[in-house]
Amino acid sequence: MSVSGATGRLPGARLVAPVATLEWREGRLFIIDQTLLPGVCKSIPLDTAHGVWEAIRALRIRGAPAIGICAAYGLLVALKEKNPADTRAAKAALEEAAAYLATSRPTAVNLFWALDRMKARAATLAENAPLEEFLGALEAEATAIYEEDLELCQGIGTNGATLINEGDGVLTHCNAGGLATSAYGTALAVFFKAHEQGKNFHVFADETRPLLQGARLTAWELLHAGIDTTLICDNTAAQVMKEGRVQLVVVGADRIAANGDTANKIGTYSVAVLAKAHGIPFYVAAPYSTFDFTLNSGDEIPIEQRDPREITHGFGQITAPEEVSVYSPAFDVTPAGLISGIITERGILRPDFRESIAKLAASVGN
Amino acid sequence: MSVSGATGRLPGARLVAPVATLEWREGRLFIIDQTLLPGVCKSIPLDTAHGVWEAIRALRIRGAPAIGICAAYGLLVALKEKNPADTRAAKAALEEAAAYLATSRPTAVNLFWALDRMKARAATLAENAPLEEFLGALEAEATAIYEEDLELCQGIGTNGATLINEGDGVLTHCNAGGLATSAYGTALAVFFKAHEQGKNFHVFADETRPLLQGARLTAWELLHAGIDTTLICDNTAAQVMKEGRVQLVVVGADRIAANGDTANKIGTYSVAVLAKAHGIPFYVAAPYSTFDFTLNSGDEIPIEQRDPREITHGFGQITAPEEVSVYSPAFDVTPAGLISGIITERGILRPDFRESIAKLAASVGN
Repeated sequence: MSVSGATGRLPGARLVAPVATLEWREGRLFIIDQTLLPGVCKSIPLDTAHGVWEAIRALRIRGAPAIGICAAYGLLVALKEKNPADTRAAKAALEEAAAYLATSRPTAVNLFWALDRMKARAATLAENAPLEEFLGALEAEATAIYEEDLELCQGIGTNGATLINEGDGVLTHCNAGGLATSAYGTALAVFFKAHEQGKNFHVFADETRPLLQGARLTAWELLHAGIDTTLICDNTAAQVMKEGRVQLVVVGADRIAANGDTANKIGTYSVAVLAKAHGIPFYVAAPYSTFDFTLNSGDEIPIEQRDPREITHGFGQITAPEEVSVYSPAFDVTPAGLISGIITERGILRPDFRESIAKLAASVGN
Repeated sequence: MSVSGATGRLPGARLVAPVATLEWREGRLFIIDQTLLPGVCKSIPLDTAHGVWEAIRALRIRGAPAIGICAAYGLLVALKEKNPADTRAAKAALEEAAAYLATSRPTAVNLFWALDRMKARAATLAENAPLEEFLGALEAEATAIYEEDLELCQGIGTNGATLINEGDGVLTHCNAGGLATSAYGTALAVFFKAHEQGKNFHVFADETRPLLQGARLTAWELLHAGIDTTLICDNTAAQVMKEGRVQLVVVGADRIAANGDTANKIGTYSVAVLAKAHGIPFYVAAPYSTFDFTLNSGDEIPIEQRDPREITHGFGQITAPEEVSVYSPAFDVTPAGLISGIITERGILRPDFRESIAKLAASVGN
């Protein structure tokens, strides 16, 4: 991970590691400012609590795992800024900073989870403990949060990479990438790991309307890692399959029910149907935390609607009559029957998914 | 057709007739300036030969049939502007104007066809014929070109409307609409006719990346005619089908081979596969002139690639890394096996298409 501080166009060089979504380097926090992508890759330092708050608020960093990690390190940034005299003052400063950072994106569950975990670690240390020990313990905790996420993503990547054969074409939809996590992502972790293993393959990235995460983020991440990538419009996936260029589909997931039904970005279901029609295996990549064992099937997953103006006024231009009705679900649900397997950090689940998912739940419960 | 001269937002009122792509009214030519759509519907007069030339050149009017009709009437505009003293002078002015208008879009076959037809009609009249008779004959010829196209589109519409049942949801892709023809279009003629017949149905319009003809033109035309329309992203068609909202798909065609394989805007094949997977009939609407009897199958149809910048720099913004490869075929080919029927002005062709298309060819040859 060596792009920190770099500014400008993508380098043509072949990099082995995926992008450094965020880095903790010599006591300073750096993040890639994702609002500048894909035009510019710029790593910016966050040296104040307000800077961290603003970066999360303004979506300079996004994706649940990445936000949590950023907030954990953000507490260290706040402590350094405050420069407390002793552990007692540091504990007060930590509480204050955690309350402040929690207001940056009030709906982000991982944000609260990470802040709570950092506070819990702080609570294990006495007020008269040496300040250096206190700060060291918190730094270790933030790093543990980062590394656990990295390990989880790498586990998914390693397990999924076994599915990619030399010369394969692989299609993905939306961005289940490193920019939303510590570094590897979920679906994209599969590609990063296969690339690290020296496999030659080609990725087709759906641009993913309406917000173009495939074009703006996935294509950027893959190119940045030196992986051969072709960008296509969502409506071109079927044609690419028909031409025999796709041997595997891997997508991410927002929520997986106990029977394997999978909610993911709108358009995923379309890709799954097309893959089946062309005899191409369709895989979902997601960590254990994406499974919702309380949901009997995908029918119980509510689908929110997005703002119609994303479609009628895309990119600041009027691209449709203002009066037109728009149907813009944020997600769709792919039935388990269209899914060949679910790639997790604990292995690849196979049908019957109700059975294999129950086993996964039991293994974690142990 | 009563929108001429209107400027501004779409009216909420329910109109019976589709849009007036162009009109010849009291000796003047009016067209809807399509470069202003979908934001503004403005009918502009074309009162000079240069005005007609510029309107075709600048895509204020586009679509092969519409361009031909506009050029035919454009010759009348040029004659009125020139105000010749007699038929001999009028013939010279006509030749000059035809040569000039032919340079407006040198690749538009219908343009040359219409101009040639007008010149051929002029050639049937003697130089000493009364000027009024000469001008009247040319006006009648231009009107015949217009009305033949209108009849053809209406024939497709009338035949296709039989497929729409009360309460149906119908999905279409791209713009096979009135704006490209005299008034009714091909696929959209089916909707306009069913609407005229008082049927209640609902259209789902794919926005159609990368150029958004569905969002910009189809949604506008249908709304303008008072037809219930919902705009969706291309990747949402499968979800709408899964929800049971679509009972019929109707699309246009660019070229149909002798076996029924159909080339049309990229994404059409995807819709056809999805329709089949959901048990929804898939129809193509096209006039006789769209069939290419010399092509044995769709394999012989060359597919051109579009400019990658339409995808990486859509709407004047950088929406993907500049270095990314892009695969952007302009068309795809839907195999005949996925097509339930082909709606023509002479009836609905059914499988076996090689047989029914051969019969069509024979009937026209007679």
